[in-house]
Amino acid sequence: MESKQGNQMTRRDFINQAGKVGGVIAVWGAMESLGLLGHSLVGAKEFQSPKKSDLTAVNKNGKKVIILGAGIAGMAAAYELRKAGYDCKILEARDRSGGRNWTVRNGTEETELKGVKQTAHFDKDVYMNAGPARIPQHHVTMDYCKELGVKLEVFANSNDFAYFYQENAGPLSNQKIRKGTVKADTRGYISELLAKSTDQAALDTPLSKEDMERLKAFLIGEGGLSADLTYKGSSRRGYSELPGGGHQSGVLDNPYNLIDLLQSGMMHNISGEYSYNQQPLMFQPVGGMDQIPKALEKQLPGVITFGAEVQEIRQSTDGVRITYKTKENSKPKEISGDYCICTIPLSVLKNIPADFTSPMKQAIKSINYAATGKIGLQFKNRFWEQDDRILGGITTTNMDISQIWYPSHDYLSQKGLLIGYYNFGQNAVDYGNLSLNQRQAQALSQGSKIHPQYYRDFEKSFSVAWHKTKYSEGGWASYSASDLKNYYPILNEPQGRIHLAGEHLSYLTGWMAGAFESARIAVSRIHEEVLKENKVASKAG
Amino acid sequence: MESKQGNQMTRRDFINQAGKVGGVIAVWGAMESLGLLGHSLVGAKEFQSPKKSDLTAVNKNGKKVIILGAGIAGMAAAYELRKAGYDCKILEARDRSGGRNWTVRNGTEETELKGVKQTAHFDKDVYMNAGPARIPQHHVTMDYCKELGVKLEVFANSNDFAYFYQENAGPLSNQKIRKGTVKADTRGYISELLAKSTDQAALDTPLSKEDMERLKAFLIGEGGLSADLTYKGSSRRGYSELPGGGHQSGVLDNPYNLIDLLQSGMMHNISGEYSYNQQPLMFQPVGGMDQIPKALEKQLPGVITFGAEVQEIRQSTDGVRITYKTKENSKPKEISGDYCICTIPLSVLKNIPADFTSPMKQAIKSINYAATGKIGLQFKNRFWEQDDRILGGITTTNMDISQIWYPSHDYLSQKGLLIGYYNFGQNAVDYGNLSLNQRQAQALSQGSKIHPQYYRDFEKSFSVAWHKTKYSEGGWASYSASDLKNYYPILNEPQGRIHLAGEHLSYLTGWMAGAFESARIAVSRIHEEVLKENKVASKAG
Repeated sequence: MESKQGNQMTRRDFINQAGKVGGVIAVWGAMESLGLLGHSLVGAKEFQSPKKSDLTAVNKNGKKVIILGAGIAGMAAAYELRKAGYDCKILEARDRSGGRNWTVRNGTEETELKGVKQTAHFDKDVYMNAGPARIPQHHVTMDYCKELGVKLEVFANSNDFAYFYQENAGPLSNQKIRKGTVKADTRGYISELLAKSTDQAALDTPLSKEDMERLKAFLIGEGGLSADLTYKGSSRRGYSELPGGGHQSGVLDNPYNLIDLLQSGMMHNISGEYSYNQQPLMFQPVGGMDQIPKALEKQLPGVITFGAEVQEIRQSTDGVRITYKTKENSKPKEISGDYCICTIPLSVLKNIPADFTSPMKQAIKSINYAATGKIGLQFKNRFWEQDDRILGGITTTNMDISQIWYPSHDYLSQKGLLIGYYNFGQNAVDYGNLSLNQRQAQALSQGSKIHPQYYRDFEKSFSVAWHKTKYSEGGWASYSASDLKNYYPILNEPQGRIHLAGEHLSYLTGWMAGAFESARIAVSRIHEEVLKENKVASKAG
Repeated sequence: MESKQGNQMTRRDFINQAGKVGGVIAVWGAMESLGLLGHSLVGAKEFQSPKKSDLTAVNKNGKKVIILGAGIAGMAAAYELRKAGYDCKILEARDRSGGRNWTVRNGTEETELKGVKQTAHFDKDVYMNAGPARIPQHHVTMDYCKELGVKLEVFANSNDFAYFYQENAGPLSNQKIRKGTVKADTRGYISELLAKSTDQAALDTPLSKEDMERLKAFLIGEGGLSADLTYKGSSRRGYSELPGGGHQSGVLDNPYNLIDLLQSGMMHNISGEYSYNQQPLMFQPVGGMDQIPKALEKQLPGVITFGAEVQEIRQSTDGVRITYKTKENSKPKEISGDYCICTIPLSVLKNIPADFTSPMKQAIKSINYAATGKIGLQFKNRFWEQDDRILGGITTTNMDISQIWYPSHDYLSQKGLLIGYYNFGQNAVDYGNLSLNQRQAQALSQGSKIHPQYYRDFEKSFSVAWHKTKYSEGGWASYSASDLKNYYPILNEPQGRIHLAGEHLSYLTGWMAGAFESARIAVSRIHEEVLKENKVASKAG
């Protein structure tokens, strides 16, 4: 607030004063010291990248760190440690970096556990983000995109032109209804109900008469209500005939019935678009999510050994020793180092012999991983853009495909790829058990109820079942409340010289940001330990 | 609905049947004939571009059409007419095409009426869409972008990370509060109030007990309510400490007080993001809005005469004659044709002598044009992205700058341009009357209350007052209800061989779509007339 109280100097006075004396720079410093810049409002936790200058004593290039996994966490850890000169080696079982950050393109091959080999035959510019596909503004992932020069574009996580489509849900069943229409009707009826109860003084609230008038005014605007506080529809829900040139003033339809909307469950799906991590406006790298691992990999020349499957994780008081198998050589190889950062998902790690304590082993094998699957469907026309006018966003349905994702890139171009289903839990398990053809058939037959153009324009598919994907065996760590209490603290404690990292060591499971932030913690811990050693060594020396 | 009723064939039965007999193509035809493809749901009015093959008789290349103004309407009209071979000539007073579709770049010069010359000194990739800046998915503008190969990207019209900032509005005054926070609290309290009145059976509605339970379930989800139907805040509104790696589980704040929110007026601003033409997800051409006029102009080689200021608009029973002045030549020139499409804004047209009827002249001079202005502020750092984590979207305030627009392109790059104010009505008139320096000073002093970084990073500005801009003299036609009744029908009737077109001849005033759709009407009318003449001529012959 700007009013002066007695002789007290307000913030703005202070800034103005500083401006008069020292010019812009002084104003700036004053604002910074007053915390007016908003830094602390959002964004990643404080983190200082290790620097060469930190290591002034004995081990002036740090130590050797063996990192298991060239996913986001593993590569981020190597990237940060190398800033101070640490010798990092990454063992990666796959032939590519990125882990679950995986963009499927033409030629991508994958054989699921107990599955057959699948090859993507997409067109040149068509791709499918099989794993992470959207980044919220506040995640540390954005910082790395900026630092690494990864270009971003909007991922439309919510589009009011996308549809709700419900089956067996009352009178509105089996109709595609635009989300914006359902939202407008919902806000209309909710506002009407509350405004009328306000009018009847039925509300048991501490609102004054003046506040009550403000509330009513808000509800009239919010719901688009008539003067009699009734919702009769409005242009917000769309038109049956659009306004246009000349005498085309537009034709409005009547709103849907509140009771029908309630039965349809469509209203209940709206709040899914309000979460903090999944906001309507999100972001994606231009050209595919794998631009992030590619940019990290570029920073790590000679660091990653691909096709290296970890066999054993061993440690002594002065070092770690990792045994791994390569495709070329049946004889296991060994690599030693001072520390190990292990980013292998717990679902895979539980089967690798390792020098962990019993409680750690128990914790590792206790955590469930989410079953989840996606299918990418390439179409020869972007009918959703041409016919339906849907440019990005997600259609939501109670059919077991759950969602249809429209691409948020290369708008108005010819071909495109939809995510034909994205499902979880039992639904995902069931889909994972289907043959590739069956998955495709199911995606097409359900999706075509919303988009009959599926039949005309479909070309190719590629499907992923993360719980059946080798080296991942799940979408993300799925902690129960008791897991969080009993096992999560153990998993977060370093085991001697071995530190776990990955999305599973964060409160952002399933997000790349969880992997990044957890990697930073492992990096900070190792660096602190090395700094301590350096100090001791330099005193001794 | 899919259930069979007796022997009646359902839609899907029909499709399945067609599929068995004739394969995919038959299925497609069946769906098309059943109207299942969604074409009619949204999108532009039916329009058939004139074709050469329409003109089989005498005037097989159509006629000569003189078009006044190389804005969207004028160029779209020429573009469509030329598809059938019409000889089109456009007179444009400015040295550029686009009219109010104007992207200001480095070197752009403009002298306002009663103003001084202003030159933009922006960096190479920095630009300002001074006029239209966003396109909704359903507008015909999208169709032209597709047809003309104009690449689109998302314009983030709503970003929950942008701020509300109110002055003199109770306890929440002079604080920047993220829109998503205000939305979450609003939905929370509204849901709580209604849920509790539901509970008290205070609602006078026809809802059954079952529906009432559904309503309550919806409200719990919608508002993020606790089991006791109280709103206590939630992660949707954001965190004071974000969740992160390891033990950083995140810290939530308490919600704002409902009474404070009501007083602040922030809640009342939310519904501004719900309109049909201004949806949260909108679009813009990559590289500036002027990519649309540039693409149209490319289709019109030799058609446009720039710097041609119309002096008189004359017509006889068999043709039109336009007098115009060029900069090179003080002697007026003349051009004749069969028809004229006049897209000159009424605010300018009213001062041009023309062969219009008295009611037409009266109509033309009766329509008000909106006063509106914008300022572009170039900054040397995108502090809003770095510090505030705002990538696109609009901050809303009750200060007279009204809005701050963050750019929706080149995210995470170094420099950027904000729209520092976008205002209307008296507010715009007042700003228009300020000197360029005063406008800049006001934009900076008000904007810096939200973004103190303004002081550190500001570099250059360029401001536009549309009501003071030569050849436009207003943002858009602003019809009162009585104007619509008394004058709009007259303006829409052709005056002999002269047809008006432009956003002012549409129910989409202020939108490029209005210009496009109105141009299509003029084109269709002229083409129909020519076809009729052809018919008569060929009978006579």
